[in-house]
Amino acid sequence: MRSLLLLACLLLATSAAHAARVDTLSIPSAAMQKTYRAAVVLPASYAKNKKANYPVLYLLHGAWGHFNNWLSKTPDKQLLHRLADQYNLIIVNPEGETFSFYLDSPVKADSQFETYLTKEVIPAIDQAYRTVRDRKGRLITGLSMGGFGAMYLSARHPDLYGAAGSMSGALELSSANRKATPDEIAWRNKNLTPIIGSEEQNPAFFSANSVVNMADQIHKNGLPIIFDCGVDDGLIEINREMHRRLVYNHTPHDYTERPGAHTWEYWQTALPYQVLFFGQVLKANGVAVP
Amino acid sequence: MRSLLLLACLLLATSAAHAARVDTLSIPSAAMQKTYRAAVVLPASYAKNKKANYPVLYLLHGAWGHFNNWLSKTPDKQLLHRLADQYNLIIVNPEGETFSFYLDSPVKADSQFETYLTKEVIPAIDQAYRTVRDRKGRLITGLSMGGFGAMYLSARHPDLYGAAGSMSGALELSSANRKATPDEIAWRNKNLTPIIGSEEQNPAFFSANSVVNMADQIHKNGLPIIFDCGVDDGLIEINREMHRRLVYNHTPHDYTERPGAHTWEYWQTALPYQVLFFGQVLKANGVAVP
Amino acid sequence: MRSLLLLACLLLATSAAHAARVDTLSIPSAAMQKTYRAAVVLPASYAKNKKANYPVLYLLHGAWGHFNNWLSKTPDKQLLHRLADQYNLIIVNPEGETFSFYLDSPVKADSQFETYLTKEVIPAIDQAYRTVRDRKGRLITGLSMGGFGAMYLSARHPDLYGAAGSMSGALELSSANRKATPDEIAWRNKNLTPIIGSEEQNPAFFSANSVVNMADQIHKNGLPIIFDCGVDDGLIEINREMHRRLVYNHTPHDYTERPGAHTWEYWQTALPYQVLFFGQVLKANGVAVP
Amino acid sequence: MRSLLLLACLLLATSAAHAARVDTLSIPSAAMQKTYRAAVVLPASYAKNKKANYPVLYLLHGAWGHFNNWLSKTPDKQLLHRLADQYNLIIVNPEGETFSFYLDSPVKADSQFETYLTKEVIPAIDQAYRTVRDRKGRLITGLSMGGFGAMYLSARHPDLYGAAGSMSGALELSSANRKATPDEIAWRNKNLTPIIGSEEQNPAFFSANSVVNMADQIHKNGLPIIFDCGVDDGLIEINREMHRRLVYNHTPHDYTERPGAHTWEYWQTALPYQVLFFGQVLKANGVAVP
Repeated sequence: MRSLLLLACLLLATSAAHAARVDTLSIPSAAMQKTYRAAVVLPASYAKNKKANYPVLYLLHGAWGHFNNWLSKTPDKQLLHRLADQYNLIIVNPEGETFSFYLDSPVKADSQFETYLTKEVIPAIDQAYRTVRDRKGRLITGLSMGGFGAMYLSARHPDLYGAAGSMSGALELSSANRKATPDEIAWRNKNLTPIIGSEEQNPAFFSANSVVNMADQIHKNGLPIIFDCGVDDGLIEINREMHRRLVYNHTPHDYTERPGAHTWEYWQTALPYQVLFFGQVLKANGVAVP
Repeated sequence: MRSLLLLACLLLATSAAHAARVDTLSIPSAAMQKTYRAAVVLPASYAKNKKANYPVLYLLHGAWGHFNNWLSKTPDKQLLHRLADQYNLIIVNPEGETFSFYLDSPVKADSQFETYLTKEVIPAIDQAYRTVRDRKGRLITGLSMGGFGAMYLSARHPDLYGAAGSMSGALELSSANRKATPDEIAWRNKNLTPIIGSEEQNPAFFSANSVVNMADQIHKNGLPIIFDCGVDDGLIEINREMHRRLVYNHTPHDYTERPGAHTWEYWQTALPYQVLFFGQVLKANGVAVP
Repeated sequence: MRSLLLLACLLLATSAAHAARVDTLSIPSAAMQKTYRAAVVLPASYAKNKKANYPVLYLLHGAWGHFNNWLSKTPDKQLLHRLADQYNLIIVNPEGETFSFYLDSPVKADSQFETYLTKEVIPAIDQAYRTVRDRKGRLITGLSMGGFGAMYLSARHPDLYGAAGSMSGALELSSANRKATPDEIAWRNKNLTPIIGSEEQNPAFFSANSVVNMADQIHKNGLPIIFDCGVDDGLIEINREMHRRLVYNHTPHDYTERPGAHTWEYWQTALPYQVLFFGQVLKANGVAVP
Repeated sequence: MRSLLLLACLLLATSAAHAARVDTLSIPSAAMQKTYRAAVVLPASYAKNKKANYPVLYLLHGAWGHFNNWLSKTPDKQLLHRLADQYNLIIVNPEGETFSFYLDSPVKADSQFETYLTKEVIPAIDQAYRTVRDRKGRLITGLSMGGFGAMYLSARHPDLYGAAGSMSGALELSSANRKATPDEIAWRNKNLTPIIGSEEQNPAFFSANSVVNMADQIHKNGLPIIFDCGVDDGLIEINREMHRRLVYNHTPHDYTERPGAHTWEYWQTALPYQVLFFGQVLKANGVAVP
């Protein structure tokens, strides 16, 4: 009988692995007068474990991307499903548009993603699902521009998040510190300037809003932080600089360098470490679903 | 019925969590004319899944320690059990004595732990259990002196291991590069000199056998490598130096700095990341037990 | 005859080496309602070369110090004389009081040394001597607190200085980033708080006025910069951080690490390299006295 | 009369500036069965100050170069003359051929420059001139391949030199640690392999003879060391690695990063700092000519 039960369990477990449900939610933005979709991955246990409130991981996409990237671009299409099941986490993939950098644009009225993500998406998710309605159970990370977004939003809204991460983060908004090539400058002028404005005209904005300049704010917030970068990634020096500044000002944080470049293979490798970190935070906060 | 099954499964799962078996094995050493014990953690599935060959993680203890430290000193006494179950790994905790540094002593005939671990322990384990009898399924890591041992043995025997790690590794054998205090010197003379010899009399041995000087050998071997250290650990600069040398000579490796010092809280936090890394290696090597 | 001339020259040269004149000037401060002294080292050639306008090096003392430290505390009491002669420089040693950090205190009305040094000392010197009355011929450096002062004043008044330096600079005003010991905290409260205020009450002031946070301003100014620190100096990590930030944001600068600690032996060794650097700047600016 | 004397002195001084004599010496090599030339810059005082023994600076050229590069390629053609006069130094520019790296080739019988420079050039110079015939008065530095040579020869012959330096040093002989492009590999095979052999066939030689791997030997020798590199130089990371290894093993040394690339403008800027350093060493050794 025991082995029969076991067999049944294994079957169930197998099915469970694919039972994680993905909703596509429409979340309107009053600030932008638009409605964007979000992909919500619910762990298999969510449907059964009706009494539990689930922690939520906000997982941000990168530049040129959209809300469903993390589900459609990882080589392993079941990655998020498996992590949601393994850690009993709701994983929310909100929209950040191609180049919003998840901030409230000073020049584009309908690019207000800081407001959207903090004042509109969170309440919508907390209303639609059985979530831990507290920073203790709310986590945020992302890749590239999404790594910037996760560090930026958590640095400015420490009351909303229990921990934050970044993978291959584009943590520097300014390009004043780069030796930008003519191509890069042309690219910025064409793609970024219309959305976040011109650094030449508003350098203070670019400096004040670069995560790499927020080390003291991050220190003050005291949130658990994890970020990483591939050593073959063009953004490695920015991430090393972020790490050094947080070491310099004695800010507790996890920092990892590993092989790899700015690719989905890298992010598929990196995400499980970040979720393991978040899982430890949730346990410490007493809000993990067993 | 389904929910009944589920209930049963949850029960079973709960029991399973404690079903991981721990053997204490006696493994004789011809080289040292001694017999030492090893603690072997078998995943719950091992007893049932009789057809599978299991990968083996060799987990080394630190200075002043013994084979059962990882089972007795972590705040969470079920850590190894859970990791063994989660990744379907056999975790072997061999003896390394208090200050052997896992090498063959040039001065102490009965301190030959490189020979013991590579030529005596591995065959004994492969004979006693259904293991993956190939480097592809053999992993090694450890803490402090055990981190040294894992990096040292894998650097010198790349044919035996599929990947290696180190946590808070004492990767430098020599103290010539330190500004040793009189206390440190007295301590070394009393504890280390009788076992691994005097650096003053044999500096070449200390230099040639320090992991931090093996960056080019590690590069040549091409093994997947993961190591980490706490930023408040006295060994952080040695680990930073190891990382920089591996970055300098373009050796792929995972390196992490995180909060914490030379404590069991740190190692309990660190081990799951290392096992996650090893799990990815085993999948890539096609020897993971599903 | 030639050899007679030569002999005479050697004698003259020898005497010349000691002919550099040191004036002690009283320079009143309207801002502080006080008069402070400054030591002015004039090169031997100054008295003879009546047509030439001389470049001026402002050389700042450290904490616990006063205007005449550089003349009284270096093991070689002729150091400034020789450098003045060798480079045909006027070396001005102004007063900075024990803990002013050369800034305008937000809490102490009679500690306004930024105003004093930039608006009162410079005009007084330019009026008293045949100087190059232009930033091209005006240089500033100092040790410890004086290194902070030189970098701070030149970063905020790039119109006044042609180049700036720092030796063993205390480039970080804030101690929020330090893990301050109770002794350090007690020391700060007793000595610094009365002069530059309490960081707890005014953290923004400490952050905004720390040289280590001015990397982008220094980048923008484009002044030639040279700074150094001894590897055994407690301030080495602050100076490394400054260097990394200037490397990160592509600011041209000379940075040197050398043996030594926070001592007058170190500063006696360091100063000639800084003056050599300034000499190259003066040549490039076309204002060096041949 | 005094001013007349002075005038005469100024004239003399001016002429003195151009009085530094340059000899071209032929120095045979028994080891290579060849004779090479060396350029020897004698300070103006040498001819007059017949009783004094002069310290000697060996100044090495880079790859693609020859003995007279330092005299013919610096923008300021009087640079060596002026430094020789200012510090009362004999500056010897020996031949190192285009790609010898100043070592004894294991494959080319007539490329034995370690032997030539240490056993043949030094005795020839000490015999031809009134030199300080002791390591205390013998200094060595160079640029690029010559920086390698100066560090290499002084590391292996600490009995011969009182101090050593390197400018933009190619301190790494091996290219195993580089990600060499096909062009670089082709270049090495064509130019270096015939002279210093093939790394593929003799990797141990390349590793054992790379200055970057001699940090512990340099530490043991205890020679005063100064080296620098431009931040825009392709060799900057090798020099940073050398610096970090010497910091790591607590070897006293001066290390400078400054603006600039692999150019003669850079070396003209760098050399005076190195000679200032050597001047301080000579004073400390009591062998400086006043």
